[in-house]
Amino acid sequence: MTGATPVGRVAVLGAGSWGTAFAKVLADAGRDVVLWARRAAVADEIQERRENSGYLPGIRLPDALRATSDPLAAVRGADAVVLAVPSQTLRANLAAWRDVLPPDVTLVSLAKGVELGTLARMSEVVREVAGVEEDRVAVVSGPNLAREIAEEQPTATVIACVDHERAVALQHACSTGYFRPYTNTDVVGCEVGGAGKNVIALACGLASGLGYGDNTMATLITRGLAETSRLGVALGADPQTFAGLAGLGDLVATCASPLSRNRTFGERLGRGETMEQAQAHAHGQVAEGVKSCSSIRQLAARHGVEMPIADAVHRVCHEGLSPRAMAADLLGRQRKAEFA
Amino acid sequence: MTGATPVGRVAVLGAGSWGTAFAKVLADAGRDVVLWARRAAVADEIQERRENSGYLPGIRLPDALRATSDPLAAVRGADAVVLAVPSQTLRANLAAWRDVLPPDVTLVSLAKGVELGTLARMSEVVREVAGVEEDRVAVVSGPNLAREIAEEQPTATVIACVDHERAVALQHACSTGYFRPYTNTDVVGCEVGGAGKNVIALACGLASGLGYGDNTMATLITRGLAETSRLGVALGADPQTFAGLAGLGDLVATCASPLSRNRTFGERLGRGETMEQAQAHAHGQVAEGVKSCSSIRQLAARHGVEMPIADAVHRVCHEGLSPRAMAADLLGRQRKAEFA
Repeated sequence: MTGATPVGRVAVLGAGSWGTAFAKVLADAGRDVVLWARRAAVADEIQERRENSGYLPGIRLPDALRATSDPLAAVRGADAVVLAVPSQTLRANLAAWRDVLPPDVTLVSLAKGVELGTLARMSEVVREVAGVEEDRVAVVSGPNLAREIAEEQPTATVIACVDHERAVALQHACSTGYFRPYTNTDVVGCEVGGAGKNVIALACGLASGLGYGDNTMATLITRGLAETSRLGVALGADPQTFAGLAGLGDLVATCASPLSRNRTFGERLGRGETMEQAQAHAHGQVAEGVKSCSSIRQLAARHGVEMPIADAVHRVCHEGLSPRAMAADLLGRQRKAEFA
Repeated sequence: MTGATPVGRVAVLGAGSWGTAFAKVLADAGRDVVLWARRAAVADEIQERRENSGYLPGIRLPDALRATSDPLAAVRGADAVVLAVPSQTLRANLAAWRDVLPPDVTLVSLAKGVELGTLARMSEVVREVAGVEEDRVAVVSGPNLAREIAEEQPTATVIACVDHERAVALQHACSTGYFRPYTNTDVVGCEVGGAGKNVIALACGLASGLGYGDNTMATLITRGLAETSRLGVALGADPQTFAGLAGLGDLVATCASPLSRNRTFGERLGRGETMEQAQAHAHGQVAEGVKSCSSIRQLAARHGVEMPIADAVHRVCHEGLSPRAMAADLLGRQRKAEFA
């Protein structure tokens, strides 16, 4: 097996905003791309009108991008399969596709989170369900707000794979004038960074909903990245990754942006809405950070890592702590020396 | 000499927004504070109306805070003198005050920048002009937008001094319910972080003025912190400081906030205004980053450190490069592996 095989045909499984935007990037980079949508109506709209109006309204998708709701048609002959479904559904979705995956295909995860129950990272779920070694699995992570990428705003990202050659092949497959991927071999760091940022973004949203400004947000980002990095290092990540695009970069983009679902969800909770009310405003979905805060907290406990922010978010989302009490709690922590 | 002497009387020299807000913090923490304003009208307004309407309109200043335009009256009997004047004027201001400073006074710098010509950090200017050892000089740095602190929003900061005891005494002197200082002994790291962030904020403003969104801003913050950190380490800083409140925290607050002068200044340039036009909107002042980009760039060259963002900002501000050409330049840099 060589990771250096050029990537010609790509299947993107999942037509949400990020899956659709990434499929557009691949098509713009000259790849032969098929985008799978769960709902036939979405595939039809993309196929016939070149738009995914539910997730990326107003974005004209490339003519070369094909869409289907048949997974077999999507993955047939693919050199790489990009998994762009929500993290907590990845296991069930992949199990349904497992038997149709081409033999030496590269599996690329766009999902960010830690699985509830198993506490597995997304690449671990992929390896387990697809029955492949870690050198076959890559992850994409960075300051990648889908809407901005779809608008062809210049964006950098990280493609991580323990097989450097495979990461390079993917890098070539998705480089365009506006999308610049860098390679990294630290899959663990990229995944922990990506999962952690949803929780910190929720915390920033909570603070903003309570009326706190940029000093507080910057403090939450700083302390949040520090606790996420501690967890990553305990799991074997390179601390440097957290200072990079998939750590700090992704975190800042998500926390600063009004486009971020996790931040918006937290903001509604902070303003006093219930979980149900916030959910009603998010296409009926709960933000990923609501789930990840619990799995990350358990993972941290298992490895003896202190994560006060993830802990506080969990207590707000699942134990009825009021956002105001959470803020008082976090801000009241005793600290004398910054790095003591 | 002991750094652990409690700080009772404090003089704050400079009644801009940060000097005024910090004087309020000290007064709220129970210190006996005198705020020096260059203009008698400003001192009179604070003294008589409890407001500094030019810099912090609508903020009621504590009754205990006294103001004067006489430096001798301000520093007499002070245990600590806080220097809150613009960085490029610190040398001249301090030279005028040098002879009235009490003998064992702690000198605290709030100024952020690198002096043009000498390439000295602010604590170096203080030591040189006041003729004191480094254990007498402290710096305050963190995610500290003055307006939010004046509104008593919860804020964390770093007080750095090579004399840990002295930092602790200052920490006690300015701790309030809304203002939480942490100590650090890495003065170099805090100062380089503070100077660098003005330049990165200018770059973020330029990008925003050109129409780029949060992905680009997050990338500039990430790469900007990396290059600032490289410079700091070359000057003897602890890399950890850049991941903390005085590095990442300060940078994120400044870059994200519409309150930031450097960001706003860059935004105007990015939208096509001339340096003169942008200056006219900023009380006639040039943003600190406009000056620091040049001194930081020279400092980097002296130490063989590559700083592409500071370099690009310098070329826009001082060599006539258009913001659009700068963006194309920065985004077109070849990079394959993120940390190669």
